[in-house]
Amino acid sequence: MNKLILLIKKKRLKIIGLLSGTSADGVDACLAEIMEIKGRMRIRQLAFKTYPFSEDVGNLIFKLSDPTYQNLDELLRLDVVLGKFFARKAVKLIKDFGYEKKEIDLIGSHGQTIRHLPRPFLCLGQKVKAPCHIGDPSVIAGTTGITTVGDVRRADMASGGEGAPLSPLAHFMLFNSPGTPQVVLNLGGIANLTILPGTEIIDDVWGFDTGPANMIVDSLTKKYFGKKFDRDGRIAFSGKVNLRLLTFLKKDGYFKRKPPKSTGRERFGKGFLKKIAEYKKMHRLKSEDLVTTVSELSVQTIGESFFGLVKTKKQIQRLILAGGGVHNQYFTLRLKELFSPIEVVTSESFGYNPDSIEALTFALFAYLTIKGRTGNIKKVTGAKKEAVLGKICLG
Amino acid sequence: MNKLILLIKKKRLKIIGLLSGTSADGVDACLAEIMEIKGRMRIRQLAFKTYPFSEDVGNLIFKLSDPTYQNLDELLRLDVVLGKFFARKAVKLIKDFGYEKKEIDLIGSHGQTIRHLPRPFLCLGQKVKAPCHIGDPSVIAGTTGITTVGDVRRADMASGGEGAPLSPLAHFMLFNSPGTPQVVLNLGGIANLTILPGTEIIDDVWGFDTGPANMIVDSLTKKYFGKKFDRDGRIAFSGKVNLRLLTFLKKDGYFKRKPPKSTGRERFGKGFLKKIAEYKKMHRLKSEDLVTTVSELSVQTIGESFFGLVKTKKQIQRLILAGGGVHNQYFTLRLKELFSPIEVVTSESFGYNPDSIEALTFALFAYLTIKGRTGNIKKVTGAKKEAVLGKICLG
Repeated sequence: MNKLILLIKKKRLKIIGLLSGTSADGVDACLAEIMEIKGRMRIRQLAFKTYPFSEDVGNLIFKLSDPTYQNLDELLRLDVVLGKFFARKAVKLIKDFGYEKKEIDLIGSHGQTIRHLPRPFLCLGQKVKAPCHIGDPSVIAGTTGITTVGDVRRADMASGGEGAPLSPLAHFMLFNSPGTPQVVLNLGGIANLTILPGTEIIDDVWGFDTGPANMIVDSLTKKYFGKKFDRDGRIAFSGKVNLRLLTFLKKDGYFKRKPPKSTGRERFGKGFLKKIAEYKKMHRLKSEDLVTTVSELSVQTIGESFFGLVKTKKQIQRLILAGGGVHNQYFTLRLKELFSPIEVVTSESFGYNPDSIEALTFALFAYLTIKGRTGNIKKVTGAKKEAVLGKICLG
Repeated sequence: MNKLILLIKKKRLKIIGLLSGTSADGVDACLAEIMEIKGRMRIRQLAFKTYPFSEDVGNLIFKLSDPTYQNLDELLRLDVVLGKFFARKAVKLIKDFGYEKKEIDLIGSHGQTIRHLPRPFLCLGQKVKAPCHIGDPSVIAGTTGITTVGDVRRADMASGGEGAPLSPLAHFMLFNSPGTPQVVLNLGGIANLTILPGTEIIDDVWGFDTGPANMIVDSLTKKYFGKKFDRDGRIAFSGKVNLRLLTFLKKDGYFKRKPPKSTGRERFGKGFLKKIAEYKKMHRLKSEDLVTTVSELSVQTIGESFFGLVKTKKQIQRLILAGGGVHNQYFTLRLKELFSPIEVVTSESFGYNPDSIEALTFALFAYLTIKGRTGNIKKVTGAKKEAVLGKICLG
């Protein structure tokens, strides 16, 4: 029988989710078992591990992600190299956790973002949104022999959306609790907020990117302290907030813009960092004060987005944290202060490793796509219609 | 019921095939009805039309196809613009021939080649093959609402193949006649040859790219005569073959290389043209003599490939011509002379418009992919394994 029909009809799927975030330090790989019982999703996390990139891979990703750097051939090659890397790590995850390849039904891969570009650009007189996520799913499927769903943001963009954020639907499936209004905050390179009003209706779910979470902090710790990130928020705790710099940075137009909205390294990457470095030089700021100030920028813009843009805020009973930023205690402490008296927990309370949520999201999208179900929420991405996301590459 | 299952199970599919060739002058769109009766393919061509690109689209394709030109963002935007263009023309074909969108099951799209690059390049210490075909199938599916299969060459390359030529399998399905050994010659920008020994076994089929067909001729008529191509071969008939130039051009290593082999504009594009222009200047050749000489280069390298590399040649009874080059009477006259006493016909004898064969090929590949069937022939592309080609984007 046709392999794809078997996959579509199968009730209980073991799916690998792969994500390499904007920090470009490695690929998060998770294995989940997904099924539906009486119309309700059951998602069981079986395995999770992060496999780091070698330094040269990370450097090439950063080089190509610089919006001023143009090299098509390097990109095309890295697209294949990353596809092979993701494939090898998917196979490694299977082995590392004692599974066998034949048990795995599907891979869902986000790919590495090189360009996000949610706003249209002119090309031959037409306004187009042209993102770039690499790590070719055809290469993953060809290398692993496992059917792979990838490049999921394009279909939403083709439907007029920003292609992001997509995670609100996944957050709904992972965390929704009827009767309990909750907010999910993913602290990745970028922070994104999902509002789950506690109904069972997907269209009630809402969300948007609030701005940077770890992205600028990581860039500064790398530049001034030679460290990939601010472990436990130690540097942030050691410095002081510079109010003038904070006020200056908060003037960025993104923070005031109304959703639907999403953002990336184009806005909070090299150019933003340059502004900060110039400010530091002119005002002779200490390096640790910079880290504290941009950490404060992250949490304050999250708080202000929530209290300024989310209408249902009064009923919210719980803030669920996920993403690498949950390990930054400066973030979590300040978020607890800002969101008080709302209860703040991590996704761990729901049985999901906070680091794995994004990878899990793309396992979920692979599931939805293979079942022929749409994956975008119109009012979240701004799309004109719902779309089955991604490209299916048969293994 | 799941839309994809319905599609997979459907016995008789109406599929649109889209191809824009290396000449970058427009998109060939065909509509075919494909079914299988007792394991045998029945392919009925219902419609065919070529929709030209506007000049600015063609120019941007040529600019981006230049291997020395590097602009990732322009490429990403054109990927979307062409996806939308292909989608609009698929819908136009449906209307132009009196069909309705809901009757169409599937679109198979080759995309526009920007890089072919069948040979590996080094990237971070790894040898990778990284082609580039644009006109995003997610955009086609999203715009038309019709499920689309695209980017078919990647899966073969991921399996170690050159990603080309893929047409031999399609030629087998369109033209194979048990008991009658035949050769199919596609005269596109590049010429490719398929040997159909007259058995019913796919693995007996063989083929390769012989080198340029229209690619260099078109470039020269554009450069020296301001014409897109040499209509009916008139310019070629008006000039004389310059034997020294012909001998010089035939020294290109591609012609002697043993298959599996495939080629593209990287080899017979701007750089090759520059050599010819320099030769012309140095030896004061007439422009029409250049056109005659490169036309002769095309037919002679086809003939020499056939007689030099094809072992089963003695039995071949028929040469079937397809592709835009069939209208070049210099080509057809000389091919008849070179292949005599083998009978030379066009695909029209089989009920297929010669201009439509390549577009038809990608309708066929969409059919195979949706049915979960492999589309590459290992000894033709050099792949290590057979692969289900392409990326399925649900409409």
